Amino acid sequence: MADGTASFVDIAAPELARGEADRPHSAVVRFGTEAPLKLDAGGVLSPFQIAYQTYGILNAARSNAILLCHALSGDQHVANVHPVTGKPGWWETLVGPGKPIDTDRFFVICSNVLGGCMGTTGPSSLAPATRVPYGLDLPVLTIRDMVRAQAMLIDHLGIERLLAVVGGSMGGMQVLQWAASYPERVFAAFPMAGAARHSAQNIAFHEVGRQAIMADPDWRGGRYLTEGANPRRGLAVARMAAHITYMSDSSLHRKFGRRLQDREGRTFSFDADFQVESYLRHQGEAFVDRFDANSYLYVTRAMDYFDLAADYGGVLANAFKGTKTRFCLVSFTSDWLFPTSESRTVVHALNAAGASVSFAEIDSDKGHDAFLLEEPELFAITRGFLDAAARAVGVP
Amino acid sequence: MADGTASFVDIAAPELARGEADRPHSAVVRFGTEAPLKLDAGGVLSPFQIAYQTYGILNAARSNAILLCHALSGDQHVANVHPVTGKPGWWETLVGPGKPIDTDRFFVICSNVLGGCMGTTGPSSLAPATRVPYGLDLPVLTIRDMVRAQAMLIDHLGIERLLAVVGGSMGGMQVLQWAASYPERVFAAFPMAGAARHSAQNIAFHEVGRQAIMADPDWRGGRYLTEGANPRRGLAVARMAAHITYMSDSSLHRKFGRRLQDREGRTFSFDADFQVESYLRHQGEAFVDRFDANSYLYVTRAMDYFDLAADYGGVLANAFKGTKTRFCLVSFTSDWLFPTSESRTVVHALNAAGASVSFAEIDSDKGHDAFLLEEPELFAITRGFLDAAARAVGVP
Repeated sequence: MADGTASFVDIAAPELARGEADRPHSAVVRFGTEAPLKLDAGGVLSPFQIAYQTYGILNAARSNAILLCHALSGDQHVANVHPVTGKPGWWETLVGPGKPIDTDRFFVICSNVLGGCMGTTGPSSLAPATRVPYGLDLPVLTIRDMVRAQAMLIDHLGIERLLAVVGGSMGGMQVLQWAASYPERVFAAFPMAGAARHSAQNIAFHEVGRQAIMADPDWRGGRYLTEGANPRRGLAVARMAAHITYMSDSSLHRKFGRRLQDREGRTFSFDADFQVESYLRHQGEAFVDRFDANSYLYVTRAMDYFDLAADYGGVLANAFKGTKTRFCLVSFTSDWLFPTSESRTVVHALNAAGASVSFAEIDSDKGHDAFLLEEPELFAITRGFLDAAARAVGVP
Repeated sequence: MADGTASFVDIAAPELARGEADRPHSAVVRFGTEAPLKLDAGGVLSPFQIAYQTYGILNAARSNAILLCHALSGDQHVANVHPVTGKPGWWETLVGPGKPIDTDRFFVICSNVLGGCMGTTGPSSLAPATRVPYGLDLPVLTIRDMVRAQAMLIDHLGIERLLAVVGGSMGGMQVLQWAASYPERVFAAFPMAGAARHSAQNIAFHEVGRQAIMADPDWRGGRYLTEGANPRRGLAVARMAAHITYMSDSSLHRKFGRRLQDREGRTFSFDADFQVESYLRHQGEAFVDRFDANSYLYVTRAMDYFDLAADYGGVLANAFKGTKTRFCLVSFTSDWLFPTSESRTVVHALNAAGASVSFAEIDSDKGHDAFLLEEPELFAITRGFLDAAARAVGVP
């Protein structure tokens, strides 16, 4: 199944964030004009490349591969030091030797999504024809396009069937799309804090973020990289707004309440008097150092466009008709961005399709981001589900 | 009690939004240097002015006056055509002849808040010393400052005791501050969808809005009016983010769902494909035509600073110790910005203070903005509460 025309390049030169788009600190597979990527917008993307990380060893039977799908602001650096920020990988809580997604046992793959900025082709990548960054000349992408590209990577790695596809938030959307598009290639599917469609409220929050970016004069109609600018302030505002939605009211209260930041009293100014203001400003600024503003537009748009049922005559169960994939879903009680009701909708559709499915709503006050945090119940469920899947296919 | 030095001016020249700051389409009372306003930030504001509207007739006993307190984005134009937008007043559902707040029976007053932009002194008002708009030279204000200014207006109108003080959201904060600061002047207090302090999540959303405004290069460090600019895009983004928080997920879903705006399918672009995007963009743009960006900074800051208990040794009940005011509170089930728990906190404090209090959580899926909308249960409660108060003081 590996596509013989793709070339595999490992580049590890020390470059900064911008450089990650074309020369990432990751393995890269380039698909030439012989292997175009069909896009939902019409036409194809070609050539293009995928940057990815792997952990653990693929067994001889090629039966122990787990694909992790990252969320909006994530990337492929799941369980290694991030090449730009120097911080630990975003899922080191869950992924590593002896951890619930055990890299001593499984071959774990995570690729940067299509439209991203960490080495997979996205708006900050150089367009082959012009040798300047695509900007808005890149076609608008969908979750299905992202998954189609991932399937080409999995082909390239010579893996027929994935033991599991796992991801949270937008990663959960990708998991559902994988199960729908390639049911015979997904033994087990584990979407966390996910949804089969983006809600009106979620689209609304994304639109605020996009408008914040596009309102920044340094966005330059999307041509900021070519013109030597960067819409830092717009992207920081977008991130600040989004970050609030990733937490619960009670976690913000517990973490910050109305506590003041390094001061005795109110300053009667527009400084960051409150800890929560200071925290948010920091979140905004830190994000800008590692993320591309146009990628933020593309990836949020892909999420907004996601509506799995719409591709199946409006009936979500049809997306899973006859599936043999075993599913596990989790949601978190305090997640108001991807609330439990969204996961239940998927569970009901899977039930209607006669699929094997288990579901747990985990009691947590940490909001949407709970899937990224220390959540013992999530760890136990992940370990149990993957262990059962591994036993079923004979992975020791 | 009327302060003899204040002058009463009614100006109705046809001017646009900017003109409202200094020459509003409202009654105006100007307080000269003889009547300075003490500020929580320290020092005084002097001179200053208050713009206000009244409806109905003050009876001979001066016992039928109801003060309405408006919310962040509101103003004094409660029940008349708005002079800038040409739209109906913001509370015509509830206020008018024969309505729950019956202007055939009550003398209804609403003043633009201190820091606002519709004729009460705010950052867009001309500073007396320089004759250019204050901008950030205006001291940062608090809810208590706003209420202190309102009390001077009520003095000026010769009203000793208000039959009721009523308001929603930030208006509810002012109601509570009135009851705490001037218990003998408030016969009945009716805060709707209110809170005795601003939560961390609410501060966070406000901070996003402020950062969006201050990130706009046309904000010019707050001097945009003097420099002939206007941070329209920043203010629009702030309004868009805030507007989402005024609605519930289910009301957004009911109103828009994932429906497309005047198109057959996705356009694969960053246009407003979805109705909810188009609606939000419109909300942002319309707001900019009638609201001043610096006022948005000042008024949101006043809300963030509000923490009634903090002024009373950290014990909210102490704010109401010995009060004879009768209270009614309402909250709405789907309001996640000022959730029922915030109202309950106030009710518990009032109970501890031995106050007369009734409370209703109204079942509504309309979110925080429910207090502005057609809500029969709200209407019935308002009518009943005000009717009982009127009977108790002998207003026919």
